[in-house]
Amino acid sequence: MKTLSTQVCIIGAGPSGLLLGQLLHNAGIETIILERSSLDHVLSRVRAGVLEQGTVRLLEEAGAGARMHAEGLPHDGFAISCETDIHRIDLTQLTGGKNVMVYGQTEVTRDLVDHRSQTGGITMYEAADVEPQEFDTAGPYVTCKIAGESVRIDCRFIAGCDGFHGASRRSVPETAIATFEKVYPFGWLGILADVPPVSHELIYASHSRGFALCSMRSNTRSRYYIQCNSDDHIEAWSDEQFWTELRRRLPPETAEAMITGPSFEKSIAPLRSFVAEPMRFGSLFLVGDAAHIVPPTGAKGLNLAASDVHYLFEGLRSHFLDSDTTLLDAYSERALSRVWKAVRFSWWMTTMLHRFPNQAPFDAKMTETELAYTLDSEAMRTALAENYVGLPY
Amino acid sequence: MKTLSTQVCIIGAGPSGLLLGQLLHNAGIETIILERSSLDHVLSRVRAGVLEQGTVRLLEEAGAGARMHAEGLPHDGFAISCETDIHRIDLTQLTGGKNVMVYGQTEVTRDLVDHRSQTGGITMYEAADVEPQEFDTAGPYVTCKIAGESVRIDCRFIAGCDGFHGASRRSVPETAIATFEKVYPFGWLGILADVPPVSHELIYASHSRGFALCSMRSNTRSRYYIQCNSDDHIEAWSDEQFWTELRRRLPPETAEAMITGPSFEKSIAPLRSFVAEPMRFGSLFLVGDAAHIVPPTGAKGLNLAASDVHYLFEGLRSHFLDSDTTLLDAYSERALSRVWKAVRFSWWMTTMLHRFPNQAPFDAKMTETELAYTLDSEAMRTALAENYVGLPY
Repeated sequence: MKTLSTQVCIIGAGPSGLLLGQLLHNAGIETIILERSSLDHVLSRVRAGVLEQGTVRLLEEAGAGARMHAEGLPHDGFAISCETDIHRIDLTQLTGGKNVMVYGQTEVTRDLVDHRSQTGGITMYEAADVEPQEFDTAGPYVTCKIAGESVRIDCRFIAGCDGFHGASRRSVPETAIATFEKVYPFGWLGILADVPPVSHELIYASHSRGFALCSMRSNTRSRYYIQCNSDDHIEAWSDEQFWTELRRRLPPETAEAMITGPSFEKSIAPLRSFVAEPMRFGSLFLVGDAAHIVPPTGAKGLNLAASDVHYLFEGLRSHFLDSDTTLLDAYSERALSRVWKAVRFSWWMTTMLHRFPNQAPFDAKMTETELAYTLDSEAMRTALAENYVGLPY
Repeated sequence: MKTLSTQVCIIGAGPSGLLLGQLLHNAGIETIILERSSLDHVLSRVRAGVLEQGTVRLLEEAGAGARMHAEGLPHDGFAISCETDIHRIDLTQLTGGKNVMVYGQTEVTRDLVDHRSQTGGITMYEAADVEPQEFDTAGPYVTCKIAGESVRIDCRFIAGCDGFHGASRRSVPETAIATFEKVYPFGWLGILADVPPVSHELIYASHSRGFALCSMRSNTRSRYYIQCNSDDHIEAWSDEQFWTELRRRLPPETAEAMITGPSFEKSIAPLRSFVAEPMRFGSLFLVGDAAHIVPPTGAKGLNLAASDVHYLFEGLRSHFLDSDTTLLDAYSERALSRVWKAVRFSWWMTTMLHRFPNQAPFDAKMTETELAYTLDSEAMRTALAENYVGLPY
């Protein structure tokens, strides 16, 4: 057994683990990051790409914001279409000057990986059987296997940034944790294609045939989604079928303007809301997807992980640098207060824009009216916009 | 068979029928109002008492606003309590100067009855077996029995202002009408007592034991409600039990300040959302509760009836005085657009403030978060306030 030692052992080298590692490193706090997958696999994950201003600021603070500012697309608004009508949500005007940044999660991860390799900090990839240990005592550690060898990492704190299926949340006794879950009765069929986006801003489409989303990664790469059945198989959807169905759900002028082409990535994702409470167990802190999942409508997943990182970083910095545990002790409460609001927003956007199979007629009318009222009322558009750009930390 | 003739036969002498009758009378359009109950019974019905500005304006326009302005209580805000905290919703500040008028529906009815008796206009009480007839032809009429004698009223149009259980909606063939309904799994136990209200503004209380509402009819008469089980019986609730349970659901300082006394009215009301579409069938128009029911949370029932009256009055005036049918033809669409928004608001307020038995834990958290976010966000408080004072006609 090889034994290493650090101040904070971070489990998971996704964007939240890497971002936390970088902020701590910049503050002079030592970390080791353990990642189950290979670096190549980490960099190949395709995920959301709409960053709130708070997330942008954290990436800048970490020193990993240069390429994002050079290549990312600041968006001052987006559109919601409702059958054949289309309405713009002017984020900048409604929020007193705020906007969002369209920049793929894959790119964020790459920038953070590059920055960590330049500034130092150990990241161990392909770490098998990662397990947080003894985190209810003053001597926590993490065990894993690297290339067949058992490794033990002694640390003061463990940050569980290893996602919904990771070991961190699973290592907590069931009696110590409360979970809340909603599984939506549909999925998102998404494609990536090297065609120019149909609009320079995102379009969220509510349609009697189901939801659709026109998004992008860049000015030459489009990301499109359509609501599909939970049990749909990817093989059943040819590119042509996808484009035909997408066009049907968009206003005519949008459908006509769309440029299609071969997809180079195609997948179906289930939609789920999930929250685990609390987010701290002794020396173990859950961060991002390890503690909560939101459906992708409104793009809150990565941003919520970033706000968790912010609260945990503040707590750890204050613990190590000022010997003050107040913020660390408040981590779970501070993070969860914002988590629940973002979970509510994602649930609300999802409920309002999708078609639910077998929905009671009254409930369907409420959904339809909620959307009509939201588009009609400046107060509701303001509420939508303030959530979309991100509620304050 | 006695035969009478008029321009508009109004079925129902509640506030909507009386208000429509008065507006038409003032415009020189003849009406006969038929009412199933006695005048005494009509004047003894206890109902909501929060009037939107649009309702206040219509009562003024009808010439029946003098006593309301003398005795009604203008309210510039109300409170929402959440367990032990209390938050004020400043209606006037949030809506750019609007407010509501607290004035009992019983008083509104009395003022309209008095005004009709002064200005003329036939109202026939205790009319049995009222039935709209031949309203899909150019020769509609209404039949009924007055003191045993068969009466037929020939008219150009019929206004069905006879409430949820009235004959008007029931006379429409089922195939011509779509209905939407939600029955809530709880009721409201309400009392009237001659004690000063605990606060000069309404308090809507969200509490783990259930919803409560502190309202009033005047500075010396209080109206209090608590959420109860759907199958509760009034006999099971003594005054003392009511006051004890009400106090438990309020913040401590409110509970302590409450003055109690014997109730002189006590009843349990079920909560229901209901909408029938369309609201016109040839020469028959449905108005108010005949077409839609909302739960009492947010006090939209009477106000929604008033906005229906507004749209129907505009249509009838324009038909009779200007020979223009445009507004009359648009009645159903114009009325329903506002109806659905008020139904949404009442459903939203009800869902957010009540406790639902056997609710999924995730859904309960969404409700809790919706309330926390609404109280926290100026945009959401503005949306709440603009609905509470009444969306524009």
